Amino acid sequence: MANIDQLNQHMTSPTAANFVPLSPLSFIKRTAQVFGDQTATIYNGRQQSWRQIYQRCCAFSDALRRNGVEKGDVVSVLAFNTPEMIELQFSVAMAGGVLNTINTRLDPETIAGILNHAEPETLVFDAELGDVLVDALSRCTHQPAHLLVISSPGLDLPDQLTDVIDYEDFVETGDPASAWSLPASEWDAFGLNYTSGTGGRPKGVVISHRGAYLMAMGTVPAWNVPMHPIYLYTVPLFHCNGWGHAWMNALVAGTIICLKKIEAATIFDVISKYRVTHFGGAPVVLSLLVNAPSEHKKQFDHPVHVMTAGAPPPPAILEQTEQLGLEVMQVYGLTETYGHIMHCAWNPSWDALGFSERAEIKARQGVQFTHTEEVEVVDLERGDPVPWDGRSEGEIVIRSNTVMKGYHKDPIATEEAFKGGFFRSGDVAVRHPDGYIEIKDRLKDVIISGGENISSVEVENILYRIPGVACAAVVAKADDKWGEVPVGFVELSHDAKPINEAEVIQFCRQHLAGFKTPKQIIFGEIPKTSTGKVQKFVLRRELKLSS
Amino acid sequence: MANIDQLNQHMTSPTAANFVPLSPLSFIKRTAQVFGDQTATIYNGRQQSWRQIYQRCCAFSDALRRNGVEKGDVVSVLAFNTPEMIELQFSVAMAGGVLNTINTRLDPETIAGILNHAEPETLVFDAELGDVLVDALSRCTHQPAHLLVISSPGLDLPDQLTDVIDYEDFVETGDPASAWSLPASEWDAFGLNYTSGTGGRPKGVVISHRGAYLMAMGTVPAWNVPMHPIYLYTVPLFHCNGWGHAWMNALVAGTIICLKKIEAATIFDVISKYRVTHFGGAPVVLSLLVNAPSEHKKQFDHPVHVMTAGAPPPPAILEQTEQLGLEVMQVYGLTETYGHIMHCAWNPSWDALGFSERAEIKARQGVQFTHTEEVEVVDLERGDPVPWDGRSEGEIVIRSNTVMKGYHKDPIATEEAFKGGFFRSGDVAVRHPDGYIEIKDRLKDVIISGGENISSVEVENILYRIPGVACAAVVAKADDKWGEVPVGFVELSHDAKPINEAEVIQFCRQHLAGFKTPKQIIFGEIPKTSTGKVQKFVLRRELKLSS
Repeated sequence: MANIDQLNQHMTSPTAANFVPLSPLSFIKRTAQVFGDQTATIYNGRQQSWRQIYQRCCAFSDALRRNGVEKGDVVSVLAFNTPEMIELQFSVAMAGGVLNTINTRLDPETIAGILNHAEPETLVFDAELGDVLVDALSRCTHQPAHLLVISSPGLDLPDQLTDVIDYEDFVETGDPASAWSLPASEWDAFGLNYTSGTGGRPKGVVISHRGAYLMAMGTVPAWNVPMHPIYLYTVPLFHCNGWGHAWMNALVAGTIICLKKIEAATIFDVISKYRVTHFGGAPVVLSLLVNAPSEHKKQFDHPVHVMTAGAPPPPAILEQTEQLGLEVMQVYGLTETYGHIMHCAWNPSWDALGFSERAEIKARQGVQFTHTEEVEVVDLERGDPVPWDGRSEGEIVIRSNTVMKGYHKDPIATEEAFKGGFFRSGDVAVRHPDGYIEIKDRLKDVIISGGENISSVEVENILYRIPGVACAAVVAKADDKWGEVPVGFVELSHDAKPINEAEVIQFCRQHLAGFKTPKQIIFGEIPKTSTGKVQKFVLRRELKLSS
Repeated sequence: MANIDQLNQHMTSPTAANFVPLSPLSFIKRTAQVFGDQTATIYNGRQQSWRQIYQRCCAFSDALRRNGVEKGDVVSVLAFNTPEMIELQFSVAMAGGVLNTINTRLDPETIAGILNHAEPETLVFDAELGDVLVDALSRCTHQPAHLLVISSPGLDLPDQLTDVIDYEDFVETGDPASAWSLPASEWDAFGLNYTSGTGGRPKGVVISHRGAYLMAMGTVPAWNVPMHPIYLYTVPLFHCNGWGHAWMNALVAGTIICLKKIEAATIFDVISKYRVTHFGGAPVVLSLLVNAPSEHKKQFDHPVHVMTAGAPPPPAILEQTEQLGLEVMQVYGLTETYGHIMHCAWNPSWDALGFSERAEIKARQGVQFTHTEEVEVVDLERGDPVPWDGRSEGEIVIRSNTVMKGYHKDPIATEEAFKGGFFRSGDVAVRHPDGYIEIKDRLKDVIISGGENISSVEVENILYRIPGVACAAVVAKADDKWGEVPVGFVELSHDAKPINEAEVIQFCRQHLAGFKTPKQIIFGEIPKTSTGKVQKFVLRRELKLSS
């Protein structure tokens, strides 16, 4: 018998010729060479070619190394979707660093917790976030040695921020022709992304070069992305690296339109002006467009493909977005899966269906992406796959090269997350007879508001800090604009000092980011199980009946 | 300092949740689930869905395992582009076997050499090639234990072939719902492809699952392939797994039109009937279409994208193919690189150029594919990259995950091929100022006729076997139909028995495949260097002047 492996011991180990670590850095390098003159970014009318952005990345990474950044060092970023944020998706990794982008909407206390945990020596921030940063740093034991600012004309920094280097000056100190290396291993860390902390405190998700490469590669066929798309970046780049779409645009030599603020009028303008072909965003962005004043609205005569995630788009929103000329595809994912891992892949045979049937399909999270090996819905108790009957509920579990390496400094949570050889999503779903998956509930009662995850536990913990609160529960309430908003249920102790709704909301606002603050407080006894656990499903039903 | 790697020892090794071996088998599995009803293959009007082909592959691989095929065992195939050949691109690997497709145009002696070297226990063949197989087996020391035949109605097998199992009967013995496994390692062997033997005897190129996956993934953006293409398979699947396009079609749920014979009338028919969007083929296929009788020709009103390789398409052919509505992209590759590794990537700014300027660009082999990390042209003596001046010649060297694992049973040739950390192509090229590469000559004087490589050394060796031949040299002559044809120069010894052109050609035909047989013999003294080496460039000049 001729067994290939036994006969060819000389092939056991890959060589430099036939094995190259997978990394999204290869995309920008190739595109800078092959499509160097193509426009890479447009921001406030200012354009940058792929050659220019590549050279700036090389210079920035060289400057980082000169400033002491070594392989595996975290570089944190608190910034908006400006071209610098696109550059950082490549330049930090070119220096061997690990990119940690932080949600700009978080409260200073949470940001401080992330900085203490991530321990960056270098931090890049947008000048507009100077005050938030000062507040966060004042609560930090860890202090980054180097602060780099993305400045805007007319924006002064707070006095407390001294020794800040301007991002542009920093780029100038690096050599745009400097050499950089791919990671020694494709398994090396590329980024560190903090979850919204559904279980309480945010967890640090470590992602690899390999995963980032495959995420971008797999998105191209699944979203049917052609060469040279015109891509509008409405997804915040601090969310799972903006779903990996900066890497994907580097792969297909696309043009990225950057926006600092998400406003309906601006979005309509740029889609029409630059003939945007693709963008991604939470349903709240779609609802923003649909509900915009008619003088801002524009009809598009070219196809615009929209990827949406966070919550299923309501049929009414879906119908109106289609009328605007937007083709919506729902995707599903988590910070732990680099963003989207499932999508509602469209079957050409459904084109002929009526609107309501199509809307019903589009509300599903769908099937595994091309880069996802396996998505299963498993019985919560027995762990085996649920029947494909559209009724039996189970937990979504995932096996993919785009599942995180693990949680930063947290071997126990990592082991827990990977129990059974799959990543456990914590989301409950059913599987339809065609294999399409639809989410029904969340094991951990996450509330998704405007595309942001809110941990009910975190909000409840604040409510519990109010004197006299005996029991608190926070659940989601459907909202036309935000998808969901948090509503607080408060049960006061018998001897409690009276307190009203406005006071409770005011207290929450002092301790939570605005989007996490409950929009409504309902006082009264909270239903519990015999063992004392809150019955949230009863509260949700109450809210539905009352609305 | 917070170094990610040092702080996270618990992430050092990948787990089943976050690391899945890359393999094209994942494509067909996913597409069978997500797009199971889409048509996968069309052959002689018979259609098969992706669900059906997947189930047949599962059954075939199960049958292989029941017949004793184990991990790393070679399964050889001598067959045409029928749906069975598409299935084999998946089913052999599903069983853990290594697919070895053999060029059906080879002479029985060379086929015997390959079988002796590859040592398959299972061999699949097309009934039409029964006689060739009998001839080859009679010259073989190695005899496969199991022969499977792809039969056609009315085609009888030669009497010598006993104990042959029908392919369909074999599929019936397997379970279409049987489980199969991805390879334990993505580096495991997927296929064994023999070169045309430019250095003399064919070498066995071993390719991996990882390379095959990335080849298919990278082809999608580079060729701008949308979901659900209609793909016409004119490239023989025995050539580098048909350039990996069966895997790619599995990835994008395309429809593959299979053809057993390449004839202009049929090609025009199916392109028009099925609205073919993509096909690949040697320039000889293009020339076949362009030179077809006008009653067979059809004009296409939809875009048809053609990938061509083997030799640059002549401008006249290019102009006429464009008039037919075909959009041609030239690619370059070798058996050692899974097929295409470079392509003439089109820059949108060239659309405005005139025809001759566009033809000049399209004659270039271009730049690295998306899945190719690095292509360099290095000075033949010093080994450093040549200047990008369009004049300085050097050897093309390649670094890519789609470079072979190595040569089967040949550690020395493998080491030689990877010397310096790159795969050495043996092709000489220049690099234009825009970085695009253009091949100028072949280090080993390969002749490419109808897309088939012919080793001049091999043909010369036959000429040398004719009594009285003192010196023989074979070079390429340009040919409108075949691109190139071999021409033999023969120098007789003074005392040789007279021999004429027809007799020499007749002798070659007895010992060589038809396409390798010289089309013309020129008698006379052959120019040599002072050290006795044949000056082929003088012979080529002579041919040019005389034509």
